[in-house]
Amino acid sequence: MSSNGTTVPEAYPMNGGDGAYSYTKNSNCQRAAANVSKSLLDDAIAEKLDVEDFSCNPSNAFRIADLGCSVGPNTFFSVQNILEAVKHKYQSQRISSQMPEFQVFFSDHVANDFNTLFASLPPERQYFAAGVPGSFHGQLFPKSSLHFVHSSYAAHWLSKVPEQVVDKNSPAWNKGKIYYTTSPDEVVDAYAAQFGKDMAAFLEARAKELVVGGMMVIIMQAIPNGTPPSRIPNGIMFDFLGSTLMEIAKEGLISEGEVDSFNIPTYNTTPKEMMEVIERNGCFSIARIESTSPWLKAGHMINGPGLTMQLRAGMEGVFKAHFGTEITDQMFDRVYEKSGELIQKIESSCKEGTQLFLALKRK
Amino acid sequence: MSSNGTTVPEAYPMNGGDGAYSYTKNSNCQRAAANVSKSLLDDAIAEKLDVEDFSCNPSNAFRIADLGCSVGPNTFFSVQNILEAVKHKYQSQRISSQMPEFQVFFSDHVANDFNTLFASLPPERQYFAAGVPGSFHGQLFPKSSLHFVHSSYAAHWLSKVPEQVVDKNSPAWNKGKIYYTTSPDEVVDAYAAQFGKDMAAFLEARAKELVVGGMMVIIMQAIPNGTPPSRIPNGIMFDFLGSTLMEIAKEGLISEGEVDSFNIPTYNTTPKEMMEVIERNGCFSIARIESTSPWLKAGHMINGPGLTMQLRAGMEGVFKAHFGTEITDQMFDRVYEKSGELIQKIESSCKEGTQLFLALKRK
Repeated sequence: MSSNGTTVPEAYPMNGGDGAYSYTKNSNCQRAAANVSKSLLDDAIAEKLDVEDFSCNPSNAFRIADLGCSVGPNTFFSVQNILEAVKHKYQSQRISSQMPEFQVFFSDHVANDFNTLFASLPPERQYFAAGVPGSFHGQLFPKSSLHFVHSSYAAHWLSKVPEQVVDKNSPAWNKGKIYYTTSPDEVVDAYAAQFGKDMAAFLEARAKELVVGGMMVIIMQAIPNGTPPSRIPNGIMFDFLGSTLMEIAKEGLISEGEVDSFNIPTYNTTPKEMMEVIERNGCFSIARIESTSPWLKAGHMINGPGLTMQLRAGMEGVFKAHFGTEITDQMFDRVYEKSGELIQKIESSCKEGTQLFLALKRK
Repeated sequence: MSSNGTTVPEAYPMNGGDGAYSYTKNSNCQRAAANVSKSLLDDAIAEKLDVEDFSCNPSNAFRIADLGCSVGPNTFFSVQNILEAVKHKYQSQRISSQMPEFQVFFSDHVANDFNTLFASLPPERQYFAAGVPGSFHGQLFPKSSLHFVHSSYAAHWLSKVPEQVVDKNSPAWNKGKIYYTTSPDEVVDAYAAQFGKDMAAFLEARAKELVVGGMMVIIMQAIPNGTPPSRIPNGIMFDFLGSTLMEIAKEGLISEGEVDSFNIPTYNTTPKEMMEVIERNGCFSIARIESTSPWLKAGHMINGPGLTMQLRAGMEGVFKAHFGTEITDQMFDRVYEKSGELIQKIESSCKEGTQLFLALKRK
């Protein structure tokens, strides 16, 4: 709960189960993004991870955490990628005749559907699996207990909606909108400040959990330095959802106040902002930072209905918590019908650098 | 699946959720049993656990696993007991000014309701929590990665029904019965052999996972050396369920073959049997072995309807998997009605030594 009494919860799980709107069946955009990052990840491990650092570990276990894992299957692909790259590294460094055992921690909010996640664990996996419930804005693991942290499409979620943007008396009040896409600077600044605080907490927790020499790869939604949020697909889509809600409000099905008090708690960071917060933390060196463009790669696959389904699987939870099932269904149904219009807006947007790949090493 | 094609699954989770028949609301017998064991556990840790053994651990984390944790709340009480006893031990040994961080792994079958478990984790807990899905008859954790293993009311579950007891052509065929309470020696021997194999696998896995000096406490259903299974409450109850099913079969609602092909996959070991399998394994020393009598302690609390509810919460899953919901409901409803008769049978049974407390140390 945000402290101002709105009903936006702090946890926004992806849709569970494996039904038509489930994240399991509607996360191939996120999957495409992970594929873009696969070779970057492989390179980072091959070039920057030094497994000799871990050779004094008595249990000889290599521990990996995926933060914001959702219910799969993307998390299983990512983990498999990491595992193979790390094994390759052990082989190439030949530090011992014995390959370590791997333990993988799948972590997400308590409200995540861990039952579905556990039921779909790959039977042929070469690791010991565990689930860890909780917010990655706090410490989730004992000190110096992890060797590799991975987080894909999760670190752009804020711990809560910035309080000012739903405060009528604040200059940052985001009236009639649900995102900062086309909002005054005060709103954008409030979002940026919340992100700065959250990412600082995220890095502080990871600095504790990772062993010296350990690596962290973060893949997240982003925006190129100096680009306005109204130019990127993300900003355009959320604005489109907001207008649709205002349309529903104008018809009297909900009040405008209900729209005013709702904001999507994600943020698109710039590479510059991320580098600053990493520097302030001081515990990590940047092994690699790369702006990538999954929208360009996925371009030929994008169609209106498919995009709406993806958006729904990822974002439905946060809308339902505020507006209830009926209005949320209606909003997505309307967006589905108008998806040609949405696609057109996105066509002319900036699709470069909307994703950030970061490989950090614990100093 | 047992290999003979019957439909008894290998995992039998306690009832999930928190409804009327949930394990959450109907596990106070198990809780009473845990209370009986609390002081034994406290003593074992105080006298036999040497935390200096772990001081070379670079991450300074103390890792606890509860195997067969179900959905709570009992697992949280057990874990809290262990945690306090271990902390006390660290304080008394003063091996370092710094208390370790604790990581607790709650483990049970994949079909266990981990979502409910995670949602009910104590908010004020002083440990990092994780869930581990899988069978404890195999390795669940990396080598030498645990310091304390706890397993309460789980280790008497077999990995499967012994094949011979559902094989019409075997002398161990358990016709017309669902447990070995009043069966020929061949049936009892088949159960004992399966338990021997399963417990050997259990100990082999734990021997890998526990660090040298690590401790394991097992609390399980048992039977005194030389006592026939028809004399203990457990044997009497399961026989009662079996007769009720045969009554239903005689009325033609199910076939007798359906009863013949179903057997409850639990076993009551004797202290002697357990000591033999531990000796054969060779990796553990016995710090404490104690037969306890939770039925005597709980005696004044036992009434027919309450007992039926407890029985239902713990055992319903395995019946439903074979007989379906309707027949299972009918069976428990009939037992509920006849619970006065059941209580009378139990009154005159042997209630001493029906539980075994074991504290083992990894050599």
